[in-house]
Amino acid sequence: MDAVVKVGGSLAEDPERLINLCAKLSEFAKKYALVVVPGGGRFADVVRDSDDRFKLSSVISHRMAILGMDQFGLLLSQITPNSCATYLLNDAKQLSELEVVPIFLPSRLMFKEDPLKNSWDVTSDSIAAYVASRLQADKVLLVTDVDGIFTKDPKKHEDATLIEQVSTEELLKLNTRTSVDRFLAKLLLEAPIDCYVVNGRHPERLEAILAGQQVTCTLIAAGTG
Amino acid sequence: MDAVVKVGGSLAEDPERLINLCAKLSEFAKKYALVVVPGGGRFADVVRDSDDRFKLSSVISHRMAILGMDQFGLLLSQITPNSCATYLLNDAKQLSELEVVPIFLPSRLMFKEDPLKNSWDVTSDSIAAYVASRLQADKVLLVTDVDGIFTKDPKKHEDATLIEQVSTEELLKLNTRTSVDRFLAKLLLEAPIDCYVVNGRHPERLEAILAGQQVTCTLIAAGTG
Repeated sequence: MDAVVKVGGSLAEDPERLINLCAKLSEFAKKYALVVVPGGGRFADVVRDSDDRFKLSSVISHRMAILGMDQFGLLLSQITPNSCATYLLNDAKQLSELEVVPIFLPSRLMFKEDPLKNSWDVTSDSIAAYVASRLQADKVLLVTDVDGIFTKDPKKHEDATLIEQVSTEELLKLNTRTSVDRFLAKLLLEAPIDCYVVNGRHPERLEAILAGQQVTCTLIAAGTG
Repeated sequence: MDAVVKVGGSLAEDPERLINLCAKLSEFAKKYALVVVPGGGRFADVVRDSDDRFKLSSVISHRMAILGMDQFGLLLSQITPNSCATYLLNDAKQLSELEVVPIFLPSRLMFKEDPLKNSWDVTSDSIAAYVASRLQADKVLLVTDVDGIFTKDPKKHEDATLIEQVSTEELLKLNTRTSVDRFLAKLLLEAPIDCYVVNGRHPERLEAILAGQQVTCTLIAAGTG
């Protein structure tokens, strides 16, 4: 398995660009064995909103949010040429070897095995890293709508600078809210795997990462603490 | 099985009232064998919105919307005392006989058997009626935030009047957009079962229907065409 690619739900805010990205993923799958894990986006936002209004338990809101990932995964399966949605890790692995883009719907695995803390600290970022560790993928790409992890929120602060590389230990110590979920660093400590946070508006950056080239992104480097 | 009770997603707009309704359902379950089917509400609305933006296929948007029902079902399972969420019809039936409120999550049944047209004409109303027919329930209650089916949209027209009783054949011929989905009448023709559209802001009305009493609602009467 070359890479697990999490397609962030925020990318759905620009349908044309997301459709373009998904077409590129289909091309990349001819050269690399990939598995796509969906983000949550608006499907998770509406769960957060219900959580606020109904004070849901972490178990219930976690499950509802994971169903939101399934929903976005079904959407991705429609707009990604030569793709196939599946609930099964083994199927995902086998499909990835056939130049198909498997879209992994996480609900059944996560409900059955429940391997991660049930909390909003665990979002699709951590779930993608977990899936990557289960599939023994070389890399996990967290594809989002910003260039990577910044020193500050780049949407609010002009002087925010991109962090090009960070160790999992350093990421754990970062106190700022970043573009990745809070649990990811802990998970990557236990399951060392190179993790790239990359902007999906520039699909060529994903291709460069898959090819092992340096490009604008943040690398959360495994085992370099 | 006394009744399948669909709790409409629109009722979630008023959390306090929905919590009150769910507490009442738990009381009613001590006297009547009930199965709750969740509506979609905001969880389906966000799918409709994605459908508009991405022009999804009817199969994909139908599945995504059914996952929205699962999401709302999980929410209902938290706020309904003595309830239990289940994917299995048999479990729902057995739980209903134990004074528990089974919350039926429809995705697995619907994805596996796919018995209904994949279309926005088929929403949780039709799915609840289908579940009721599978469970051989005496009644199906579609619990919503209006008093029943009106001659016109009561939120827009002051002179709208409540239709107290309508046959399935008459409902089929009604050209106006009603508070129930377009497929329901066809389904009730094939699976005759008394169907009540009732306002969940007045839980005592549900109780009256369960007791076989007349009350403010719309009865879609089976076999009286």
